[in-house]
Amino acid sequence: MQRNFVRQLVFQLGKARNVYDVNRQTIRALATVKEVFQNKSEFPTRHIGPRKTDVVSMLDLLGFKTLDELTDKVVPKKIKFDRDLQIDEPLNEHELINRIRAVAKKNTIWRSYIGMGYHNCYVPHPILRNIFENPGWTTQYTPYQPEIAQGRLESLLNYQTLVTEMTGLDVANASLLDEGTAAAEAMSLCYRHNKRRKIYLSQNLHPQTLSVVETRLRAFDIDVIIGPINEVDFSNHDYSGILLQYPDTYGNVNCIEQIATEARKNGTLVCVATDLLALTLLRPPAEFGADIAVGTSQRLGVPLGYGGPHAGFFACKQKLVRLIPGRMVGVTRDHDGHDAYRLALQTREQHIRRDKATSNICTAQALLANMSAMFAVYHGPDGLKDIAQNIHNAAIALSYGLKRAGHQQLNEVFFDTIRVVPMGLTIEDIKERSQRKQINLRYVHDGSVTIALDETVKTGDIEDLLWIFKADSLSDILEDPSALNQSIFNSNFKRTSPFLTHPVFSKHHSESRMVRYMKQLENKDISLVHSMIPLGSCTMKLNSTTEMIPCSFRHFTDIHPFAPVDQAKGYHQMFNELERDLCEITGYDKISFQPNSGAQGEYAGLRAIRGYHEANGNHHRTICLIPVSAHGTNPASAQMAGMRVEPIKVKASDGTIDLAHLKEKAEEFSEILSCLMLTYPSTNGIFEEGVAEVCELIHKHGGQVYLDGANMNAQVGLCRPGDYGSDVSHLNLHKTFCIPHGGGGPGMGPIGVKKHLAPFLPSHPVIDIFHELEDNQSFGTISAAPYGSSAILPISWAYIKLMGGRGLRRATQVAILNANYMSTKLEPYYKTLYKDPASGLVAHEFILDIRDFKRTANIEAVDIAKRLMDYGFHAPTMSWPVAGTLMIEPTESEDKEELDRFCEALMTIREEIREIEEGKMDMKVNPLKMSPHTQFQVVNSEWNRPYTREQAAFPAPFVRSDSKVWPSVARIDDAYGDKHLVCTCPPILPDLYT
Amino acid sequence: MQRNFVRQLVFQLGKARNVYDVNRQTIRALATVKEVFQNKSEFPTRHIGPRKTDVVSMLDLLGFKTLDELTDKVVPKKIKFDRDLQIDEPLNEHELINRIRAVAKKNTIWRSYIGMGYHNCYVPHPILRNIFENPGWTTQYTPYQPEIAQGRLESLLNYQTLVTEMTGLDVANASLLDEGTAAAEAMSLCYRHNKRRKIYLSQNLHPQTLSVVETRLRAFDIDVIIGPINEVDFSNHDYSGILLQYPDTYGNVNCIEQIATEARKNGTLVCVATDLLALTLLRPPAEFGADIAVGTSQRLGVPLGYGGPHAGFFACKQKLVRLIPGRMVGVTRDHDGHDAYRLALQTREQHIRRDKATSNICTAQALLANMSAMFAVYHGPDGLKDIAQNIHNAAIALSYGLKRAGHQQLNEVFFDTIRVVPMGLTIEDIKERSQRKQINLRYVHDGSVTIALDETVKTGDIEDLLWIFKADSLSDILEDPSALNQSIFNSNFKRTSPFLTHPVFSKHHSESRMVRYMKQLENKDISLVHSMIPLGSCTMKLNSTTEMIPCSFRHFTDIHPFAPVDQAKGYHQMFNELERDLCEITGYDKISFQPNSGAQGEYAGLRAIRGYHEANGNHHRTICLIPVSAHGTNPASAQMAGMRVEPIKVKASDGTIDLAHLKEKAEEFSEILSCLMLTYPSTNGIFEEGVAEVCELIHKHGGQVYLDGANMNAQVGLCRPGDYGSDVSHLNLHKTFCIPHGGGGPGMGPIGVKKHLAPFLPSHPVIDIFHELEDNQSFGTISAAPYGSSAILPISWAYIKLMGGRGLRRATQVAILNANYMSTKLEPYYKTLYKDPASGLVAHEFILDIRDFKRTANIEAVDIAKRLMDYGFHAPTMSWPVAGTLMIEPTESEDKEELDRFCEALMTIREEIREIEEGKMDMKVNPLKMSPHTQFQVVNSEWNRPYTREQAAFPAPFVRSDSKVWPSVARIDDAYGDKHLVCTCPPILPDLYT
Repeated sequence: MQRNFVRQLVFQLGKARNVYDVNRQTIRALATVKEVFQNKSEFPTRHIGPRKTDVVSMLDLLGFKTLDELTDKVVPKKIKFDRDLQIDEPLNEHELINRIRAVAKKNTIWRSYIGMGYHNCYVPHPILRNIFENPGWTTQYTPYQPEIAQGRLESLLNYQTLVTEMTGLDVANASLLDEGTAAAEAMSLCYRHNKRRKIYLSQNLHPQTLSVVETRLRAFDIDVIIGPINEVDFSNHDYSGILLQYPDTYGNVNCIEQIATEARKNGTLVCVATDLLALTLLRPPAEFGADIAVGTSQRLGVPLGYGGPHAGFFACKQKLVRLIPGRMVGVTRDHDGHDAYRLALQTREQHIRRDKATSNICTAQALLANMSAMFAVYHGPDGLKDIAQNIHNAAIALSYGLKRAGHQQLNEVFFDTIRVVPMGLTIEDIKERSQRKQINLRYVHDGSVTIALDETVKTGDIEDLLWIFKADSLSDILEDPSALNQSIFNSNFKRTSPFLTHPVFSKHHSESRMVRYMKQLENKDISLVHSMIPLGSCTMKLNSTTEMIPCSFRHFTDIHPFAPVDQAKGYHQMFNELERDLCEITGYDKISFQPNSGAQGEYAGLRAIRGYHEANGNHHRTICLIPVSAHGTNPASAQMAGMRVEPIKVKASDGTIDLAHLKEKAEEFSEILSCLMLTYPSTNGIFEEGVAEVCELIHKHGGQVYLDGANMNAQVGLCRPGDYGSDVSHLNLHKTFCIPHGGGGPGMGPIGVKKHLAPFLPSHPVIDIFHELEDNQSFGTISAAPYGSSAILPISWAYIKLMGGRGLRRATQVAILNANYMSTKLEPYYKTLYKDPASGLVAHEFILDIRDFKRTANIEAVDIAKRLMDYGFHAPTMSWPVAGTLMIEPTESEDKEELDRFCEALMTIREEIREIEEGKMDMKVNPLKMSPHTQFQVVNSEWNRPYTREQAAFPAPFVRSDSKVWPSVARIDDAYGDKHLVCTCPPILPDLYT
Repeated sequence: MQRNFVRQLVFQLGKARNVYDVNRQTIRALATVKEVFQNKSEFPTRHIGPRKTDVVSMLDLLGFKTLDELTDKVVPKKIKFDRDLQIDEPLNEHELINRIRAVAKKNTIWRSYIGMGYHNCYVPHPILRNIFENPGWTTQYTPYQPEIAQGRLESLLNYQTLVTEMTGLDVANASLLDEGTAAAEAMSLCYRHNKRRKIYLSQNLHPQTLSVVETRLRAFDIDVIIGPINEVDFSNHDYSGILLQYPDTYGNVNCIEQIATEARKNGTLVCVATDLLALTLLRPPAEFGADIAVGTSQRLGVPLGYGGPHAGFFACKQKLVRLIPGRMVGVTRDHDGHDAYRLALQTREQHIRRDKATSNICTAQALLANMSAMFAVYHGPDGLKDIAQNIHNAAIALSYGLKRAGHQQLNEVFFDTIRVVPMGLTIEDIKERSQRKQINLRYVHDGSVTIALDETVKTGDIEDLLWIFKADSLSDILEDPSALNQSIFNSNFKRTSPFLTHPVFSKHHSESRMVRYMKQLENKDISLVHSMIPLGSCTMKLNSTTEMIPCSFRHFTDIHPFAPVDQAKGYHQMFNELERDLCEITGYDKISFQPNSGAQGEYAGLRAIRGYHEANGNHHRTICLIPVSAHGTNPASAQMAGMRVEPIKVKASDGTIDLAHLKEKAEEFSEILSCLMLTYPSTNGIFEEGVAEVCELIHKHGGQVYLDGANMNAQVGLCRPGDYGSDVSHLNLHKTFCIPHGGGGPGMGPIGVKKHLAPFLPSHPVIDIFHELEDNQSFGTISAAPYGSSAILPISWAYIKLMGGRGLRRATQVAILNANYMSTKLEPYYKTLYKDPASGLVAHEFILDIRDFKRTANIEAVDIAKRLMDYGFHAPTMSWPVAGTLMIEPTESEDKEELDRFCEALMTIREEIREIEEGKMDMKVNPLKMSPHTQFQVVNSEWNRPYTREQAAFPAPFVRSDSKVWPSVARIDDAYGDKHLVCTCPPILPDLYT
């Protein structure tokens, strides 16, 4: 009876839909009446691009009837996942927001004066809304294509200028992952620089910095000494570097001049972890002789976010510039001789140097570096100094009050942090009284307490702190002028050198001006708000608004990573739910969220493997087999994990691993085999048939399998690494799980492991991650924050909750469909380099082989990449994994129309190449070689090219003069920039708004 | 002692700042130690453009030392406000957000099934973030300059297409203020159409619609009959129009076919208030013979917001198109023959026709219309129908459940609203049980209850509703298939005609596509995120992010305007605080927030005056004196208020009111004088010396003074209308008080009155506004919602709280400084038409007289306006208040650099004119006449103009090829469009994304 009624309602619905229903999913048969008027989650149809009718016609082109038919052919039978994912029924977008709001509210927001590298701050609202919450900024890719990335390159150059000017050093990079890894990179650099196998770490570094550096450096068998800074003996000339902190973790401002002089005299590099805001008042480390400075720029306008993401910074002397890790923006010139920005000295990096690279760093924290750079642009030198001055004055008042109440202050000179031994009050008293005021302090093992003040502190906060220590109230205590004796301005540490003198830091101080500056930069750059970004291996899919909204919830943004865990219940619920879902998706048993980038994940996974071997007495198992087609981070990470890389050949015919060679190597190194690093489906875009056998082979030889999760977007719901033999993978949440790329970060690279590796996951010196595991055999710490970039995990959590199991699977299927559709459609024009030999199909991405054009028309991959900009598109991945090719990954979020448009661009370009081949167009001066075309070029009285202006700028009907997205500079001269290295704002900034 | 310490701290601060402090305000002497480390509000320095040093140099140019010196000279001594504004100390931006969040949380969010034209809905998050929260959309001006406004014009055309297709009528406008005023406009149109002095209103209209229509029409002495729709007798041919509602306010879907036929036969126009969502299932009114349809599109993706802003819609048959009120977008062609959009048939409107206009409407609800249009684009016809179908099915289930429980349902055919007489339960029982479930229902006077369901309703909500009525639960009741008998699909009302068949409504259904569509449109339009928009009289100042953020708080967005007042405590606190501050600023005693636009404010103010006169027995006082320089809305409003307009001359020499003429008229009409409408400072940009005498003169003749608040931005903190003799003003909160223009709305026009007019302010039929006033003698209702567009009032509230009294005053002073700076700087190039004869200064805006160029170079205002687009600027106000001139209002938010840039553009243009004057450039083909220049033109192989492409596109050094903002079409052919009127999406939409 009930079903009858339902059927009638459905029938009505059906009738109503007949007229127009051409491209929506038909409503499935309803099982309960509840569903009749419940809002079904339509999110999968928002996330997935092609409409139902499009899917049908696209499948038709490929000769399939259903998506299942297609993916049954693509995914090897042996590894197929043959049940539905056990994931909650999908929520609709508004339910999702209610749900996550409720989860967030389980976090308790206290005032945290814990410090330790994390300080509350005010995010200027114009920056919050126009950068952090704006897809025009968040969905940009790393600026490897500088002609359509001048906006964020300029902003990152501002960031570098900020860092160099505050530290006083010569060059800085465009951010690293956090302070801990920046410190580890610094000490690695010291080692690379002078090859000495001993480093000295101040015991007054933040504990997480100590752990990260120690973990990293010990993998190189470096001798790590930790102790007081005044007890180092450099005279043996055996220290590679020394790392100290200024002001240190307990708030002391120590003189490092003598140590630095001593160290330098003995060939030891001096590295200083420091605080950019403090440096507005304090003499910069370079003036004391530091070679390198590192730290975090979080407190410059980036929320705490329970530990991240924030930008770590790294600056050094000019002489070390070629050893600098990570991305660095530099000034160069374009084809027309105009100033232009681009990533400099890329030859240092892993994507070129692989295991010889300066670091495995790939993702940085571009979005957060941009926020901090804009914070500096908005406040300017005076504004920053005002902020610092206010904090410092508050600290003076607090110090004075505490001392007058009889407490013993341990740090004489300080910026924002007071360390006291309470007198007449026990630590338990202090804890109890802090609790009543909802304030978190830092309790040091020796019975002292530190209080780190920040930008948001007001009189009432100081009063509360004084109350906690039973000190007199503020109005009373400030009658004694001697308080001022403690000011930095009465010390030798007072800064006298100017900073941020470049006009960019003093022009944009009104909100109108600031917003226009941000918008102007935004509008120079291509992001996902303009067109598809079909970067192979990068999975530039939709980053939906609903997924992004929770990142602004203050119950997520305003919590200190070292706040007591019971204040972070919402976060931990979210972690647990996400872990459960990711385990279900991957077939793993446990997830560590600590790695805050893909490369960090690789590194953590390899260290876990190493730890596992060592626990089994196999210290000698250090060989890491890596196919030559692997991403550059793989060998770089293996090298950092103290492994030796053995490359495995791939077959020229189909791009698959040369199994014979693998077998040979596995046997050769059987005794000392640590692991195989494998990307699946392969970086060549193929689901290799024998992956399970490969895993078995490695296991047979005592090795572990590390499966690079970069291509997880081809697997979700179709197969699971944990099922077919992998032991550990990282998951690029910024690829498959919708965290936006942010113009080059943040990323997130949590790792999933099988049960036997779980005891070897990363730990943390401050927060006990392993609380529930008794068998903690962690190799150490790899990120400063216990759970990496916690604040962006709601994005991935939300994506899974919105899609549900079936939605996720369909997304994967459509990603595969889209790739095969394009590959097939382009077949008459371009050769797809590798296809599955049996099915003739590709996975979720494919490689166009254009190497022949070099011979026939003098055209290379870069020419096509740049020419695509004239069509309004971002280039596919260039010359990777095979030199002279283009790798295209459309993702499921692009619809048929967009795919067709991209194909049309490529087809038209093919015709342009044909004209050259046929001698109708000049070999040197043609639309490809001269691309991309700027307004400067085509709106110029001079035009002496053998093609028209229209052909240059409007090469296809869909490139229209009323909506074209233009490259803002012509083709970049990379070599010139590297020869004439300028990595801070140039004396006359090519500022467009003068 | 304490002061000593403070002084030392300050001294330190001072020293620290010496090096760089060039352009920030010096810290003022600190009075208490509290201020040392308290975060001072720096917002005024963010809101106000020029830095301190700039102010000094600008003053220097004018020959002044301080701002006070300048404004003392500008503002007549007699009217000077000589104390500080009594406004709270300013909050900093983050404190402000905490404060308003706390206020918002005093609102209680219940589920409201009250209906009456307001329904909860889901705002799609991509639209929320990329339109509602995006300054690229919110800060646009009304698209009077179509060449740089094609984006929003396209979106508004989508809106018109949505409205025409849903209603089945031929043409629609681009939104009106709300359903009530749309209905009033409809009935006024009927009167204008056939001049019959009688209208018939269905008694089943929403009560607020009845009140608004009645209030409006009675002012014309129209006979308004209210009754049941089946009792009208048309046979006397005396009804101008009939207005009925479909579905009506109680949820009945009535057949109107017979009435419509009858009416038409007798020359009566048929107007139908309807619901666009219901019309996805119901036969559209046009198919029943309606001539006009009105309503609100709120439930299509716009939050409730305690009553507004939302877009009212208006559609009619083709034959009535030239009588349509408000703005209408139409398709025309540009100079090159390309399709382009622009506002059509502007000759109907008040800015041209003044008191002969079709309406006083100026502001519409563009932003909200765009949101609803995008809602339709995102969901498409199927999606909208799905939403409607879900609601309808829920209503069927509810109806069935209630009837089975024995309650008597009064409406047989319904869409979403059920009207029942409860059986076995008293109304008090229902109220008590509703309260327990936190649900609001509508209680009709006759003892029935209505329940209006909406898009957000889920099973649990229906269960709760059934529980309230002691009906069985859902799972149980749905076993009887006869429930379906009630479906619209079994009725004659079922819609069979297709709708939204244009491709734009079916192409953008994935989020990627949707976001790209919105961004593409955004990027065609110039808004405040690009450059200054110096529109005289429009006060396009900064709309700061902090002011905008609270508009998204769900405690503001999710509350029904007719919810019990005790659920809106937060709103009422905000209203009260804002009223207090506005009274302090203006010198008035009472504010009414009901008028939701400036013109509505004028109308309400004039009606209050009329009410006042009538209460004093002076029904005959109907003469309204208006200077000829007044804004067109003034005479249009006066006419609507039933007054006779007598124009007052202004002096050609200095633009001031011709006092002799005024005196003469005042005397002539002394007996029947109602009021004077005055703009101050005058629309000519002058603080007229004698304003207080003018007011006195009017009062002497028994009249009242209405002071148009459009130029309030020149007065805040310097003088107060309430002090110098005005009785009532409207305040354009979207000008002086920072509500963004939204591309042509929302606006807000609350009125302030002196005590004697307070009893005559607008009332409301549903919510008792006058609760505290015993002397309610209100003239009626002018907006559908009791407090107008409540949801945007936090913007103005926040602006005042952020600026504080001194900040507000400084803003005014800098606004005046900026205008005088520009006027002086431009002096060698252009003549400022009017200046104060004594001081030689202007107020906050000034008029450039360019009429001579017509003779010397054949150049008109429009040529300069269009040429400015080539420089990346929006034109100033054109040909108003003086034909052939340009009026410039820079506002305080623009900094010196931007002013200089704009001046440079004008100076360069002057040189271009000189070239024509000197015969060096062609009279017809020159950069001005051919402007604006598009990419299509300058990137064209053909170029046969007597100037270069570079001159065309990059006419100044600051117009750079890497950042230029381009007009997307060439100069619009207005006449062509009006001759070939197309006001819905054209068959082949010039969609740029095909």
